[in-house]
Amino acid sequence: MTGPRYTPLAASLPATVPFVGPETQERSRGRPFRARLGANESLFGPSPRALAAMQEEARYIWKYGDAQNHDLRAALAGALNVAPENIMVGEGIDGLLGYLVRLLVAPGDAVVTSAGAYPTFNYHVAGFGGVLHKVPYAGNHEDPDALIAKAAEVGAKLVYLANPDNPMGSWHSADRVHAMIEAVPEGTVMVLDEAYVEFAPEGTAPAIDPDDPRVIRFRTFSKAHGMAGARVGYAIAAAPLIASFDKVRNHFGMCRISQAGALASLRDRAWLDEVCAQVAASRERIARIARDNALTALPSATNFVAVDCGADGDFARRVLAELAERDVFVRMPGVAPLDRCIRISAGPDDQLDVLAEELPRALAAARG
Amino acid sequence: MTGPRYTPLAASLPATVPFVGPETQERSRGRPFRARLGANESLFGPSPRALAAMQEEARYIWKYGDAQNHDLRAALAGALNVAPENIMVGEGIDGLLGYLVRLLVAPGDAVVTSAGAYPTFNYHVAGFGGVLHKVPYAGNHEDPDALIAKAAEVGAKLVYLANPDNPMGSWHSADRVHAMIEAVPEGTVMVLDEAYVEFAPEGTAPAIDPDDPRVIRFRTFSKAHGMAGARVGYAIAAAPLIASFDKVRNHFGMCRISQAGALASLRDRAWLDEVCAQVAASRERIARIARDNALTALPSATNFVAVDCGADGDFARRVLAELAERDVFVRMPGVAPLDRCIRISAGPDDQLDVLAEELPRALAAARG
Repeated sequence: MTGPRYTPLAASLPATVPFVGPETQERSRGRPFRARLGANESLFGPSPRALAAMQEEARYIWKYGDAQNHDLRAALAGALNVAPENIMVGEGIDGLLGYLVRLLVAPGDAVVTSAGAYPTFNYHVAGFGGVLHKVPYAGNHEDPDALIAKAAEVGAKLVYLANPDNPMGSWHSADRVHAMIEAVPEGTVMVLDEAYVEFAPEGTAPAIDPDDPRVIRFRTFSKAHGMAGARVGYAIAAAPLIASFDKVRNHFGMCRISQAGALASLRDRAWLDEVCAQVAASRERIARIARDNALTALPSATNFVAVDCGADGDFARRVLAELAERDVFVRMPGVAPLDRCIRISAGPDDQLDVLAEELPRALAAARG
Repeated sequence: MTGPRYTPLAASLPATVPFVGPETQERSRGRPFRARLGANESLFGPSPRALAAMQEEARYIWKYGDAQNHDLRAALAGALNVAPENIMVGEGIDGLLGYLVRLLVAPGDAVVTSAGAYPTFNYHVAGFGGVLHKVPYAGNHEDPDALIAKAAEVGAKLVYLANPDNPMGSWHSADRVHAMIEAVPEGTVMVLDEAYVEFAPEGTAPAIDPDDPRVIRFRTFSKAHGMAGARVGYAIAAAPLIASFDKVRNHFGMCRISQAGALASLRDRAWLDEVCAQVAASRERIARIARDNALTALPSATNFVAVDCGADGDFARRVLAELAERDVFVRMPGVAPLDRCIRISAGPDDQLDVLAEELPRALAAARG
């Protein structure tokens, strides 16, 4: 009994996990975290209107969700002043990135990203046999010029930029991003990941030209909308690229409750504004906590703050481990020199109180 | 601006949709269906305990779901007397079938199924470049001997059998399926789709040998558990095959509310029994309605009944269209000779009242 004959590509893949979830860590630790500040979830929760809509829709969970995501796409199209044909809804940005990579990247095809940028994008590229080319950050920012130059050099199918950036929280102006789009080489598509864009200052997101074939943008209900567990992301792009997702996606893959929640959340602009204000205040508090510990908080346009621990990656990893020992869940960039930082999600005061209490102890332990 | 360069495989794929959803049909019709009896959803709804669990979990939707689906896998493993390492939870059987095909089927690889069997499996095989070989049904049953013979002949990576069968509702005994597993050729994996198994008589599901590398089974919360919109399916197989899903799956792809609902539903055995009893009664009523119209209801071990309209596919398609005209949503097999039937989902009496009222008119119109 030989069992499965995997494809050569599948056989070659490591059983990687892009992220170890907090529940997984809690099980291996044998106890829960007191502060859950590592996954850039919105600890301020979902819109009360979204919550009510989800609780109501649960009664109809016996029905498959609408495979076309019609109502949500229509609402997003209206909000963004594009056509529904420019919008694809999927199982989080992660799911949509997987479909995009599958559509464009065959084994051996080149893809460009930044060393230390979003690991799940890399996971998908590797999973379809793509060859990743990485350029360094320029300081704490992804480097549009280097990304474009590398994309041209290697003939990349895709070039990835997150704006604002994860894990550093930095951002480029709309003008800078627009200039990058204008410089995208022939035959390359720019992946503009705007998961955190709702938290960013005015002038961060370039205007959307829905017919521009050079760029596909991704946004999500996981961050500012406080619905990470619902798995609702969306792509904005030219209609032919959006239509191509229908060739490969899991057509009935969306949870019906999530569809209803996202639609209600989209209509609750006041909640989004309130969350963004709370996040801004929380970022300030994280910066104060960092300062109180003689650490440097980097400016952030997201719902997290990268805190420079003032030494190398080994030291930051020790700080992270000591925080975990003290039941504080945070994460950190995976690549030098970004990995001198730890990345702390915004949260309400009771969560940041735990951080304020434990960070000095974690630092002392990491130093000693 | 050339835009995207699709892979040759992606460029070759049609923008197919395995099924047109009822909401899509309602939008193009401009009015809702009065009877939703086409998607084999459970019109008897979810367990009240599952509903309560989902409504409660909605409060925590700001958290990503557990990427390991730990609690649900543990509960399923306990219920099935296998190890959690034998269970993979995913975004419905559809999502899991996609991952399985991706792991095993490279362009040109052979896959075997029955002509008229589950279209979404075929969609995934085509989507990864596999070559589908189809054998006919033997009467109203999938034909294990023909499937195995074809798998051996073409060196198939996968051979698909649904037991009970969709769209015909027929079933094989556990002994017959067990014999088919024993006959699986070297290097072939049998895909045993048991989406409807909860509705089947005792002695339909063969005993689970979790270490048998020749078969992977799929089950779901979409049918008897009444949670189609939640997208929770699971695979049962040998641990190495289960582990391989971690190479390609969307690790954080599960909706947190769905995870909680499935876990609660699994613990509500009484609800499952009640639904199965209601479905059995509903099948009887559909058979009576068929008989009243001089049509033949085929025996069914599922939550739907295939009704032989007594003529060819063109006639059954007219009946289907006339039912839709009268706001009754049903579906039918896509391939002759199965397409002499229409497929009617079980449902409560108020839904079947609509069917009883409209079927004679639809038949008359189809004949006239």
